[in-house]
Amino acid sequence: MCKNRYEVGLDIMNKVVGELGSHTRESLKEIAPEFEEMLVEFPFGDIYSRPGLDLKSREIATVAALTALGNATPQLKVHINGALNVGCTKKEIVEIMMQMGVYAGFPAALNGLTTAREVFNARNL
Amino acid sequence: MCKNRYEVGLDIMNKVVGELGSHTRESLKEIAPEFEEMLVEFPFGDIYSRPGLDLKSREIATVAALTALGNATPQLKVHINGALNVGCTKKEIVEIMMQMGVYAGFPAALNGLTTAREVFNARNL
Amino acid sequence: MCKNRYEVGLDIMNKVVGELGSHTRESLKEIAPEFEEMLVEFPFGDIYSRPGLDLKSREIATVAALTALGNATPQLKVHINGALNVGCTKKEIVEIMMQMGVYAGFPAALNGLTTAREVFNARNL
Amino acid sequence: MCKNRYEVGLDIMNKVVGELGSHTRESLKEIAPEFEEMLVEFPFGDIYSRPGLDLKSREIATVAALTALGNATPQLKVHINGALNVGCTKKEIVEIMMQMGVYAGFPAALNGLTTAREVFNARNL
Amino acid sequence: MCKNRYEVGLDIMNKVVGELGSHTRESLKEIAPEFEEMLVEFPFGDIYSRPGLDLKSREIATVAALTALGNATPQLKVHINGALNVGCTKKEIVEIMMQMGVYAGFPAALNGLTTAREVFNARNL
Amino acid sequence: MCKNRYEVGLDIMNKVVGELGSHTRESLKEIAPEFEEMLVEFPFGDIYSRPGLDLKSREIATVAALTALGNATPQLKVHINGALNVGCTKKEIVEIMMQMGVYAGFPAALNGLTTAREVFNARNL
Repeated sequence: MCKNRYEVGLDIMNKVVGELGSHTRESLKEIAPEFEEMLVEFPFGDIYSRPGLDLKSREIATVAALTALGNATPQLKVHINGALNVGCTKKEIVEIMMQMGVYAGFPAALNGLTTAREVFNARNL
Repeated sequence: MCKNRYEVGLDIMNKVVGELGSHTRESLKEIAPEFEEMLVEFPFGDIYSRPGLDLKSREIATVAALTALGNATPQLKVHINGALNVGCTKKEIVEIMMQMGVYAGFPAALNGLTTAREVFNARNL
Repeated sequence: MCKNRYEVGLDIMNKVVGELGSHTRESLKEIAPEFEEMLVEFPFGDIYSRPGLDLKSREIATVAALTALGNATPQLKVHINGALNVGCTKKEIVEIMMQMGVYAGFPAALNGLTTAREVFNARNL
Repeated sequence: MCKNRYEVGLDIMNKVVGELGSHTRESLKEIAPEFEEMLVEFPFGDIYSRPGLDLKSREIATVAALTALGNATPQLKVHINGALNVGCTKKEIVEIMMQMGVYAGFPAALNGLTTAREVFNARNL
Repeated sequence: MCKNRYEVGLDIMNKVVGELGSHTRESLKEIAPEFEEMLVEFPFGDIYSRPGLDLKSREIATVAALTALGNATPQLKVHINGALNVGCTKKEIVEIMMQMGVYAGFPAALNGLTTAREVFNARNL
Repeated sequence: MCKNRYEVGLDIMNKVVGELGSHTRESLKEIAPEFEEMLVEFPFGDIYSRPGLDLKSREIATVAALTALGNATPQLKVHINGALNVGCTKKEIVEIMMQMGVYAGFPAALNGLTTAREVFNARNL
């Protein structure tokens, strides 16, 4: 049963954040192995797996929040990739960034767009 | 042309945040009348009016960001209403709040849920 | 096994944040019953139960962080109580608040002290 | 010599934030008397007393920062009063709030204007 | 008329943030061309152009806010340059940074001073 | 007497943050020499020297707060070293980071762990 939280989480984590998520997990295993398990089990196994909100909407929420907070660039990069992986278009991601200019200020929007450009370039979008 | 930014913005603002938006606008007219115009023109006339992201997704992004920031309760209340007005279900809003526990911490999620409950109660949901 | 995460968490949650934690749990059950379970299981069942850091040090960390963030007053109140419950003195809590003036600014320290005074008064300290 | 830091600070603190500063000091004396001394000595005795920036510019900086941070309403209220006390006009304060909409988002600006209106009303401005 | 918001904004943007602003605009044109227009039109065309607060005071407010927020280093660099361009002295900027130690903590002040030193060095100040 | 605040502070600063603190002080002396004095006198001479909270608990509080804020990586690095210098184990620091996942979100915890790993590696821990 408990194992299932990890298994369910890993399936969704791989689907959403793919290879970048694996990097995060590998480096966690070294310094805080139990936190690697928690990262798979709670955010992905418990939350993302829930049926009440589709994965694309979940990634819109996460990209918006991380852009607004402005202090989590590595995770924003992972979730811009995640948003693209679950069906967001490049255009939609740019719109989210612009909109964050309203709610968190122009610097948050500009820095979000800088991160988005890096992700788009890496994927040849 | 310039007039249109206000007109376009007011239509969308009324559609999204309705009566609560009117309260904000009325109280702004007193202390900073030009800012009332800017509030209609930039967030709603320039941003929300753009075709690249549907209104429901825009409200998911805004509710997520304001919950994560945790320092804008009046605006979060307005946009939980806005999310409901453009098609989000109560369930979807609760899911966004829970998910923000992952990205901004449990206090952000709990305070977001408290605000959501107030909005749901006021609308008899 | 999975049940144990909740049971383990509830024991620690009751020990640390007592009656105030029950209030939080009760109001969550209404709006987001699964989040009530997650709140018991992840923060308390998974994290606070770990042997690597004693409960008093954990509450020092939490009170410091919530004071520095400055946007989670209800949770700060809960954890000032929690700190007292697991062995912090009133004096130690005041010292943490003062020290946060260095790392998050005087307003964070002053607002933390205001919240601490409310808790101390309610407990007749 | 050390006494002078308190004396110098108290003179400037009284000049800038006046009666509201006294309230803060009185309530601090109860819970953290040494922090009352530090509040007078460091921010006002050490920083505000320095010749490199005039008091009006200092209050512009403080009002801008507290509006942008958005989690220190009691201190923002004190410093809107302070800004008025050292020569800022009501109009200038409103401009600072509007400008923070650019750098910290519209919610920060709107909440800053709400606090400003309360201060202006209390002073019959 | 609408064109004028861009023209007015571009004049002020060039005056305040000069070459660094051009870099921002050029990179925006690639990923979000309409946001380049909004960046010129709203912050500079609508806000900075207003007569109620002089440009030097506006840059003091912006430098203070970005230093306090601590999550917008590229924009802080642009506006330390902007502050120097509209009449702030090196000394005044250092004073703003030190003062932010009071309102946002010593780390914010120290990181602001690090950014200021980079700007001063690049301008041989 | 006043001299003593600097002397007392320097002793504690050297004990807690050692060589890294010296680097900070040296670079401050260049751009803001009086702020170097204030950094020694207020955080270390006034606050850390106080008897009400032991140095290990103070560093737990500071590491927790800086991890939660997420916008002060250089200072977090200094204080992870500081925590180790005054008796925290590697394990305890990892526990603090994991716990901040609860109060400030998983990105804050992950970025804190990344910084911790850099410090541990540099010390061959």
